[in-house]
Parts: sequence; C-alpha cells; structure tokens
Amino acid sequence: MYPRNAWYVAAWDVEFAREKPEAVVILGEPIVLFRDSQGKLAALEDRCPHKLAPLSLGRCEGDRLRCMYHGILFDRKGRAVEVPGQDMIPHSLSVRSYPVTVRGTWVWIWMGDAEKIDEALIPETEALDSPNYLMRHGMIDYDASAHLICENLLDLSHLSFVHENSFGSSANHEWSNSPPFVTTLDRGVRIGRWIRNRRYRDGRTVDHWNTYDFLVPGILTMAGYAFPVGTADGLEGAPEAVAQDDVYSITCQAVTPVSEGKARYFFSAGVPRGTDEEARLEQLFKVTLQAFAEDKMMIEAQQKVIAQVPGRNFHPIGADRATTLYQRVARKLEKIER
Amino acid sequence: MYPRNAWYVAAWDVEFAREKPEAVVILGEPIVLFRDSQGKLAALEDRCPHKLAPLSLGRCEGDRLRCMYHGILFDRKGRAVEVPGQDMIPHSLSVRSYPVTVRGTWVWIWMGDAEKIDEALIPETEALDSPNYLMRHGMIDYDASAHLICENLLDLSHLSFVHENSFGSSANHEWSNSPPFVTTLDRGVRIGRWIRNRRYRDGRTVDHWNTYDFLVPGILTMAGYAFPVGTADGLEGAPEAVAQDDVYSITCQAVTPVSEGKARYFFSAGVPRGTDEEARLEQLFKVTLQAFAEDKMMIEAQQKVIAQVPGRNFHPIGADRATTLYQRVARKLEKIER
Amino acid sequence: MYPRNAWYVAAWDVEFAREKPEAVVILGEPIVLFRDSQGKLAALEDRCPHKLAPLSLGRCEGDRLRCMYHGILFDRKGRAVEVPGQDMIPHSLSVRSYPVTVRGTWVWIWMGDAEKIDEALIPETEALDSPNYLMRHGMIDYDASAHLICENLLDLSHLSFVHENSFGSSANHEWSNSPPFVTTLDRGVRIGRWIRNRRYRDGRTVDHWNTYDFLVPGILTMAGYAFPVGTADGLEGAPEAVAQDDVYSITCQAVTPVSEGKARYFFSAGVPRGTDEEARLEQLFKVTLQAFAEDKMMIEAQQKVIAQVPGRNFHPIGADRATTLYQRVARKLEKIER
Repeated sequence: MYPRNAWYVAAWDVEFAREKPEAVVILGEPIVLFRDSQGKLAALEDRCPHKLAPLSLGRCEGDRLRCMYHGILFDRKGRAVEVPGQDMIPHSLSVRSYPVTVRGTWVWIWMGDAEKIDEALIPETEALDSPNYLMRHGMIDYDASAHLICENLLDLSHLSFVHENSFGSSANHEWSNSPPFVTTLDRGVRIGRWIRNRRYRDGRTVDHWNTYDFLVPGILTMAGYAFPVGTADGLEGAPEAVAQDDVYSITCQAVTPVSEGKARYFFSAGVPRGTDEEARLEQLFKVTLQAFAEDKMMIEAQQKVIAQVPGRNFHPIGADRATTLYQRVARKLEKIER
Repeated sequence: MYPRNAWYVAAWDVEFAREKPEAVVILGEPIVLFRDSQGKLAALEDRCPHKLAPLSLGRCEGDRLRCMYHGILFDRKGRAVEVPGQDMIPHSLSVRSYPVTVRGTWVWIWMGDAEKIDEALIPETEALDSPNYLMRHGMIDYDASAHLICENLLDLSHLSFVHENSFGSSANHEWSNSPPFVTTLDRGVRIGRWIRNRRYRDGRTVDHWNTYDFLVPGILTMAGYAFPVGTADGLEGAPEAVAQDDVYSITCQAVTPVSEGKARYFFSAGVPRGTDEEARLEQLFKVTLQAFAEDKMMIEAQQKVIAQVPGRNFHPIGADRATTLYQRVARKLEKIER
Repeated sequence: MYPRNAWYVAAWDVEFAREKPEAVVILGEPIVLFRDSQGKLAALEDRCPHKLAPLSLGRCEGDRLRCMYHGILFDRKGRAVEVPGQDMIPHSLSVRSYPVTVRGTWVWIWMGDAEKIDEALIPETEALDSPNYLMRHGMIDYDASAHLICENLLDLSHLSFVHENSFGSSANHEWSNSPPFVTTLDRGVRIGRWIRNRRYRDGRTVDHWNTYDFLVPGILTMAGYAFPVGTADGLEGAPEAVAQDDVYSITCQAVTPVSEGKARYFFSAGVPRGTDEEARLEQLFKVTLQAFAEDKMMIEAQQKVIAQVPGRNFHPIGADRATTLYQRVARKLEKIER
C-alpha cells in the first residue's frame, strides 16, 4: 500500500537546525537530511558505504557532508569527493541521494524512481506559512504500523468512541451515526460528512460539514465548515458551495511509514485568520493534542494485539468503506509502478 | 504439559474494580475479564474481530462490553449486538467467550473445550474468605516460563539453598536431607516430608509435617503441621491422623502460564484463626514474600541461561522424582485431550 | 575471525572480590569465575547441568563452588562432588572448566582445546603491576560486535575525525594523512606511524612515533615515542632504535567478543614513571576516556545501521590495509584450528 513513486513527509522544515544533519527513516531506509551552504536541503542514504557508519553523525562542510568516522566527504548527489589518505576515489564509493523539496514548511522526499519524479504529485497542504490560516504544527512517533494510523484517519466513526472526551463529544454518537459520502480520486479518496445540529465550543449550533481528501502515501487535508442549521437537509452530499468564510478549522496530516511497526505522524491545525485567532487556535490545538494522544493509546494497543498472535485478519464492517476504496487506489498505484 | 481442559487462575476476585475491564493473558491468549450489571464476571477474547483492538480498553455497559475503537458492542457470550452505523450484524462478528467462575476469591477460567467443562476439576483451595484461616494474598509477574516455577514448587529441597535465609534457614540442610514421600494422584502428585526437630520462629521445637498436592495445571495446596518431637520416628510417610488444630500454616498457590517465557504467580498464605492470629500471619507473610523474591531472582536467572543457549536438556537427579511424576500425569492428561 | 585456541581477556584481576563468583560471557559461552581458598582463580561453565541455573549465583566453599538452587557442589575441574539427598554422583553431572591465568592483573582464559593450551600465546602486556609505568585501567561494555571495535583499532586514521576533539586534535588531519607502516606477524599485525611536528599537551613539539601490535584474538599493545623534530625524515618506517626513555605513553587493550552484537573492551594506559607521573597519567587518562566515549558512540551507531538492513558489505578503502592483513591472519589461524 505504499507506492514508492510518491512524496513522503520527512520532517518539518522549521524543526531542524542549519548545521546539524538529521536522521530519518522512511520505508525502512535510513536517510540523512542536511542543508547546503545556502540552507537548501539535501537528502542522502544515511549509511557511509565504507563501514556503514551513519552520515547523520557527520559534519556539514559547505555543500557537502563528511562522514566523521574515517572522513570520507560526500557531495549532495551522494558521490565521494574526498577519501583521506588516498588520491584515487572509486566511483563505487557513493550513496543514494533522494530528491527533497520544501512546500509550505513541509519537507517532502521522493522515495521512488528518480526519472519518474513529479512535483505535481505533492498534495496541496496548508502549513505554517499559510496566508489564510493561523497554524500550529506537531509530530508524534508511533510504535505502530503506518497503515493502522491511515485506517484510523479513513474512518471518523471512531470519533464517537476513541474521542468521546475530545473531538467527538456528544451523547448521541453523531459521528458514527452520520454516514459519510465517499468518492474515489486518482490518488486517494474524498470523504464528507454532515454533522447536524453540532454545538461548537464557542456556543454556536450549526450544521457542520466535515470534508477531507486522503491521498497516497498517507496525506490528509481536511476542513470543517459551519452552515446554518437545516442546510444539510435534503442534500445528497457536499454543500452546494463552500466559501473561505465558512471554514471553522482546517488540518493537514501526514503518516510516514518508518519501519516495521513504526510510524511518524506529522500534523498541522489551523483556524481562519481574524478576530481572536490566537484564542481559537489555542482551543483547537489543545483538543487536537488530546485527541491525538487518545488515538496513539488505542492504535499502539491495537498494534500489540496484532503482534501477539500474527496472521489474524480484520473483519470489515460498513464503516470501512472509505478504507477499502483507498486501499484499492493505493494498491493499484503500486501495481502500475511494478 | 498444560492440558486445556483445566481451570486456570486468572486473577484475584478482590483485585479488580466493578467498572474497569481487566486484561489478562493465559496460554498466549489475550482475555478480557469484566463484570456484568450484577457484578458477575465474564471473560471474552481480548481482541475485537473488526480491527483487533483490545476490548480491555472498552467500556462496560450493563451486561455488555463495548469496544471503544469503533463502538461495536458485545454480550457476555461474545456476540456483537450493536455495530454503529449499520443495522445488519454479521454472525461472524463475534469473539470467543470463556467460562469463568469464582471460588473463594480465586477467579478460575476454563481454557478448554466448552463441552467438557467440569467444575469438579477446580481444586479445593483456601482463600481470603476462609472461615478457618486468616489469609493474605499476592501476585508476582515472572519473566520465566510457568514450568520452571512449577518445577521449583515440586522439589522443596531448594529451600535449603535458595531460601537459606528465609524458609529453609538451618545449618544442616534439613529440607534437602529429608527425603519426600511422593504419591501420584489423578491430576497431580501428593508430596509429604518430615522435618524433624524443627525450631519454629515462635520458639517451639517440633517434628514438622509438610504436605502438599500439586495439581494440573499448576495449583499447589499446602499445609504444615506441628507434632511433638519424636512423632516422625518409625513413620513411613504421613502422620496417622492430622487435625485442624495441628496446622501451623497453610498456603495455596497457582502458576498461570502467560506466554512464551512469561508467567503469573498467585498465592495466599494463612494461619489458623486464634490467639495472635494477626501477628502470626504478619510474620508468616513477611518471610513468604522474602522467599518468593528469592525464587524469582533464581528462576528468572535460570530462564536467562536457558534462553542464552537453547536446546540444552536438564540433568535429572534424585530430588526430581516428584517433578517427573507430575509431568507424567500432566502429559497423560494432555494426550487424552488430543 | 575468532580462533578458539587463544587467550581471551575475561576480567581485571583487581576488580572482583574474593568470595563472590563473577559471571562473564565470552564467545557466547556463559562462564563463572571464582577464587579458591588460596585466592587462585578457577573458571567453569556458568550453567548447572541439573536445571541450568547460573553457578554465578552460587557460593564459594573452600576450593569449590556450590549451585545455590538445589545445592550441587562442583570442584574446580567442574565435577560434581556433592548432590544433596543422594549418595551416588553420576559422572555426567559436570560442567566444562576453562584454563584461566593471571598475567599482570589481566585475567586470561583459554577458550579452545585444552590439549593445545599454550601460555606462550599470552601477549606481553603492561598492566597495573608494571615496574616501568604508572598505569590506570578500565572496562567498557559495548552494544556492538567485537570485530567492529577491532577494525576501529586497526585503522587509526579515524583519530582525525572521531577524535578530533581528543586524541586526534589538529587542524590538518595528521593521523589520516600519515600513512602507516604495516607488517604481518605470526598472530597479527604490527603498525607504525610517524606524526611529524606533533605538538604535545606539555608544550613540546616532536616527531611522534606511534607503534602497536594487534594480535589475535583482539589484543593491542601500543607505545608512543617522542623524537626530535626531523627524526622521521628519510625513514622508511620505524626509528632505528627506541629506548624506554623515549616513551611518551603506552596502552594495552583487549576486545572480548561477548555474544552476537555485544563486546567488552578492557584497557590500560600508562606513562613512564618519573617526575609528575601522577599528573601526566591523570591528563592521559582523561583524554583517553573522552576518546573511548567518542568511539563507543560511533561504533554503537554503526552497529545499529548494520542491524537495520543486514547483508550489506563494507567498501574497503586504502586505510583498511592493516585490517585486511589482520583478518587474513585471524582467518588463517581459525582455518588451521579446524
């Protein structure tokens, strides 16, 4: 379910320093991110070919990265350009380089075939540099497979249970009782849901329209819109038109598969700029962090049960429809790739 | 050596709350215990069939248990009775239920064939509700296989060494030098031993008769009797008659196999009711806890040595006779079962 | 690369008490060291044949060691000489004994064929009892394979990088830029290196001659000599003669393979006796400990990278020549052994 010809989130651009290389692992591959003399990011295999020491313990020298075990110096393409104590540099002394780019403070890395690279495949996301939203961001490491987190995000009926004290609070299971509208996209699914008569924390009661795209390889972009009560009645899906002014909150999230049973979860959440934006964001982010802790507790417990007696299958129910459609898309993309 | 058609100790009845489900693992199977609206215990497979989340993170609702991931509700037989967002409930959406019963504050669970269930196989044990004894109880988790703990309990010659500072204290190895009398029972062995001229902590010197049954799947019921010095002479085994008044102390213990290399050890210890019962129990329980810490240290170290270089066999000695006989019984029961 | 017919360092003689047995693991074999009534060391398999309990939890009784699980008593040859509760002692109830000897406070253990034992194979090392040097010693446990530590020691070009803030400090990579002279020995290699115009911490500038033998199964004996600047010019290797008076510092080190991915690293460092010996040693040992912490950080990180994606080979460079020659010797010895 993880096509390699896709952009994966590797880091928050704002989170790492100018001079210190950063180690990440994606799809089981150790990768070192470092900045060149202009501050531009480069990404190499985090494994010196000489003795397999991690380059992330290395030193940035101008546009290059030096392995600090025996001093071999690599350029940003991964080629050795200096080997201490010898003049000849074998061509084979090189590491893989990964295309890396920054969009809106998200660091994206291309894990696939370098010839197939396509920046158009980077999903549109809002991030800390958004002109329209005041945003905050975070990151959580999971002792669980990425696909368990993706499935969690693809079925928001869990808000009524896992998040009964945060996102989903209400007496009447409004999330699990409101069937979602699901559409297949080229690289994922689009999911929408009306929560009628939802009471916001600011006191308003609205028909709340929640909609998000969930795209390969695990990228979610979501917005919640507030409409007058009654708007949802008679609608067979999305509201006729949505305007920026109707937005209540947004969030962008990315699930990065690290290695067997490990994942890294990146997220931002934001409110439309305007009156009380700081207070609104503070409130939103507080409940978001609470909810994400609830997810982590449940999903890591789920992972442990799965690991305990391997080989058991899931038993699909109706609420899994979006998950099934998404997995079909992801598998298809992966199959085309091969 | 673990017949499934047997009652295993899952918990102390007094140890878990009315409303919080409790996770246990027995024979590698995750099990959730919960109480129904009358407080009666139920036991289900601790793994929701939908996404394999643990039901022990769920919520008790009357006589039912709700998975708090996506809200599926199970009755005490393990059948799904509510699936949020859908009317149809597939028959296949169910979990295994386990017969569970409480006897004298011990919680017993039947791990085998539901049709073979037989409450007569629950060993007679004393527990906190004993009318004759003042009892105290405890539980210890082991990083060691249950069978290593069983073997420890089947050969008390170790009291002279592991417990030379607690149970077995004496200069002359009285436990290892006093050969036990061993009898085979239908579901285990009966072991008895005279410790002549034993000096009790209360100052008395007696001929001490220690006798216990060790029954499948790892249940020990033991009593120690005080007789006048000289009683043991000429006897070929048990004293001619034992009376309640002769009892010095009793203990019941259960070794529950959790999973590969893990076990849970339940125990109670008690003194006959009467003068100074609190002080006598306090003294007994203190030395018991010290001795059990000594066992744990030795057995977990033994487990590590075994794990280090797997495949080594034990080398039996004379003191292993009861162990050998018990294992023969346990294997026979297991064989009949298959 | 680990011939068994070799002496391995098991411990520092000064580091363990008279009465407490000590557990060590070498080449994956659990071994217990204990002292007899004269304080002489004995080494047995640390695994009682009865139930595989560790003898290192046992008790020294005169020249013997008693297993404190069920009380079996072993002599220093590993033969059971007492089995509680029985008169007959089966011959099969015995453990392997290992030849062990102390030289200069190093405890050496022979891991191979007892008939091939040869004390002449113990490398000449300086230790705490040295008449010529004031020494200090230490020990570091590694979460890394012994061979990674050996390779580290066989190529000192890493001093310019791993140790740029300790051993190797200089702006111009003097260690990696000074090619070593390497000679093959019967049981290892001899490596020498001129560091011209080296500025000592005491203010002197010298031509520094660093030379060491690295011998199977991972024993290093090194000395650094100070010569007047210019001495190195025109020399094709070692200085014409070295005298005790020229020595700046010495070190002896031993890398003991513990088990898969684990090693124990023993070391001593010393300065020639004479003026300010305490202060000179203090200074030397401080920088030594700093450097060894730098090595441990790098090598354990290297081990993790190797474990992450097993099966990758190293890519040799020119600096690996001594490593290659050493490994050839070690493999040859191992092959002869088989």
